[in-house]
Amino acid sequence: MVYITRREQFSAAHKLVREDWSAEKNLEIFGKCSSPNWHGHNYQLFVTVKGEQNPDTSFVANLSDVSKVICKKVIAKLDHKNINLDVDFMKGKLSTTETLAVEIWKQLETSMQKLNCELHCVKIQETENNYVEFFGK
Amino acid sequence: MVYITRREQFSAAHKLVREDWSAEKNLEIFGKCSSPNWHGHNYQLFVTVKGEQNPDTSFVANLSDVSKVICKKVIAKLDHKNINLDVDFMKGKLSTTETLAVEIWKQLETSMQKLNCELHCVKIQETENNYVEFFGK
Amino acid sequence: MVYITRREQFSAAHKLVREDWSAEKNLEIFGKCSSPNWHGHNYQLFVTVKGEQNPDTSFVANLSDVSKVICKKVIAKLDHKNINLDVDFMKGKLSTTETLAVEIWKQLETSMQKLNCELHCVKIQETENNYVEFFGK
Amino acid sequence: MVYITRREQFSAAHKLVREDWSAEKNLEIFGKCSSPNWHGHNYQLFVTVKGEQNPDTSFVANLSDVSKVICKKVIAKLDHKNINLDVDFMKGKLSTTETLAVEIWKQLETSMQKLNCELHCVKIQETENNYVEFFGK
Amino acid sequence: MVYITRREQFSAAHKLVREDWSAEKNLEIFGKCSSPNWHGHNYQLFVTVKGEQNPDTSFVANLSDVSKVICKKVIAKLDHKNINLDVDFMKGKLSTTETLAVEIWKQLETSMQKLNCELHCVKIQETENNYVEFFGK
Amino acid sequence: MVYITRREQFSAAHKLVREDWSAEKNLEIFGKCSSPNWHGHNYQLFVTVKGEQNPDTSFVANLSDVSKVICKKVIAKLDHKNINLDVDFMKGKLSTTETLAVEIWKQLETSMQKLNCELHCVKIQETENNYVEFFGK
Repeated sequence: MVYITRREQFSAAHKLVREDWSAEKNLEIFGKCSSPNWHGHNYQLFVTVKGEQNPDTSFVANLSDVSKVICKKVIAKLDHKNINLDVDFMKGKLSTTETLAVEIWKQLETSMQKLNCELHCVKIQETENNYVEFFGK
Repeated sequence: MVYITRREQFSAAHKLVREDWSAEKNLEIFGKCSSPNWHGHNYQLFVTVKGEQNPDTSFVANLSDVSKVICKKVIAKLDHKNINLDVDFMKGKLSTTETLAVEIWKQLETSMQKLNCELHCVKIQETENNYVEFFGK
Repeated sequence: MVYITRREQFSAAHKLVREDWSAEKNLEIFGKCSSPNWHGHNYQLFVTVKGEQNPDTSFVANLSDVSKVICKKVIAKLDHKNINLDVDFMKGKLSTTETLAVEIWKQLETSMQKLNCELHCVKIQETENNYVEFFGK
Repeated sequence: MVYITRREQFSAAHKLVREDWSAEKNLEIFGKCSSPNWHGHNYQLFVTVKGEQNPDTSFVANLSDVSKVICKKVIAKLDHKNINLDVDFMKGKLSTTETLAVEIWKQLETSMQKLNCELHCVKIQETENNYVEFFGK
Repeated sequence: MVYITRREQFSAAHKLVREDWSAEKNLEIFGKCSSPNWHGHNYQLFVTVKGEQNPDTSFVANLSDVSKVICKKVIAKLDHKNINLDVDFMKGKLSTTETLAVEIWKQLETSMQKLNCELHCVKIQETENNYVEFFGK
Repeated sequence: MVYITRREQFSAAHKLVREDWSAEKNLEIFGKCSSPNWHGHNYQLFVTVKGEQNPDTSFVANLSDVSKVICKKVIAKLDHKNINLDVDFMKGKLSTTETLAVEIWKQLETSMQKLNCELHCVKIQETENNYVEFFGK
């Protein structure tokens, strides 16, 4: 069993606001992230898959295929977009990095199986001081 | 003459759109950056000042003072904000990195003189692949 | 279960010396790190906690709270200090990165439980070539 | 149980080509990596070992010894070399990052036991977008 | 006058050998870089152009155009190639980073004028410890 | 004229204190850097030299020679040392990054001329947020 990781990036806008809360409560809980006119980040996405090495290629999976899947299922929907307004799989959800990691997992899990490997970890780095990891359970 | 540089960061939303242009023309010229619902970045700002060393402290300027000026005049206005909508010194301007560098220069130039040093360069890194520098002329 | 990580930094002096050993033996075992007048590092501290997402906020824990705990319990005691001389929880211990990680774990474990999450890993990067991780057992 | 990691680097040439395949098939499967006159990378190698802290030194292992082993067994054979042509432990194998990680594991496993610690992970970063990890099974 | 910089990357093989010198002399002068079966690097290329801001777009130049020029004239010829054997503009030259920077300048100078800006600097980073800059004279 | 840069690193302890000032004044001016029992940093030193390419090697200077000079004249004196107590060329001086850059320039200037190139810049990065450059005048 070998683990391979592909990094992709996207630049997106978001804010953390619950509409059923007052502006004051949003500010208290979400701090600067509740700023009404949006802010944004350069997100780094690290997708780790695991599997046996294919005896013909010695690859676990062709990283070129892994990258294509991530770009089609995730990056194309998020890059230069507004996470709260533009992204189908985030509709109606708070755009925390935690939820983003869980929802990106759901977008990728089946596709990685089709590449004969298993999704192991979705890691999202929001700033150089913060990152989130989800291992599927 | 010694040059000292302070890095500060801000996370902000923006888009590149001219309202007197059609959506098609905006897309042609500004590409993904014209996406209507905003996107955003972790911007890194490098401010370089130059001067003689103060004989009492051997500092060109106290970086703690330099940082305070940058945070008050620039970061407080940009961090977790929308560059197009929220920032007084960017009102009515296209939020390209070039213009951002020039306008940040204007915010800082006089204040750096008060610290007995001279503003030398404003550098803004928008992504790991792109940065802009302005030297005041 | 989602894992979130917060990075904090501190700049500190230390040396690796056992007073019951000769200077020669200290040099043999600890190399340049036994230099008598101290040396120092920019340490990077990565604290990972894990937990279920809070249904109200979708946070595992508010990273602002996580940061406050780390700064109060750890960074305030280490930053711009001498690890051997100034830090209560390192008194009488060799200031190796291994021991630092274990002792920082002890400073943080209970406080993270109060934030309704579980401490998962303390990682300390001493130079770009060396880091240590402790998972609590 | 504490985990310590040492980073070493090597610059090497390689290509991904199976001689029993046509140039077309090699290009289809291995893409640009099948370019006939070689290409190369700055590889970063992260070796993680785990163990109890030695009560005399509080080290898991002396990183200076860990580094010496890695340099003698791995870096000296790979740095400024051609992975396909010059490296004994890669002879007759496809020089994918996966295989490189597995074969480096084999070079290091016994030597790390002699340092009274256990090899935990071999991680190789080929570019800033790709890395591979092997945990020995 | 504003300066904008675009980073692109390429992975290439090379060696430093003069065929009119003995292997011993090549080793003495070029060290490990004279290893006969090639080695390679992940090269980072930073291209800086300068100019006035275009009043219509506030760009010095559209970085998307700058990137296209660099990729067509330079990256397509170097990425996953052998600098000594495969690259037309390096034929018959020693593949030092200095010469690479000078020759890349020649490939780009005219094209940047067509984008209404002026080439200011070609910087090539070969490893994290070494880089070369050429300003055209 | 081509510019080449070599990075070297050192880990050192220091503090910023004037003995003719009270502890209060030292704290007011130098902040945390006046902490009495020292602190320290991983300093990164970037040395840039410039010159014509040697027609025999196409090098401006052999980076291996440049590195040897920097290590002998600077790194050997600073690495794992106390800047205030152990370093001959810093005796009696405040250990600010500005002064360190100026004094390192003096250590290197003549030696670089012997390598047939000219010292252009000494840059010292003290933390990821601060760096200083000195160009010799």
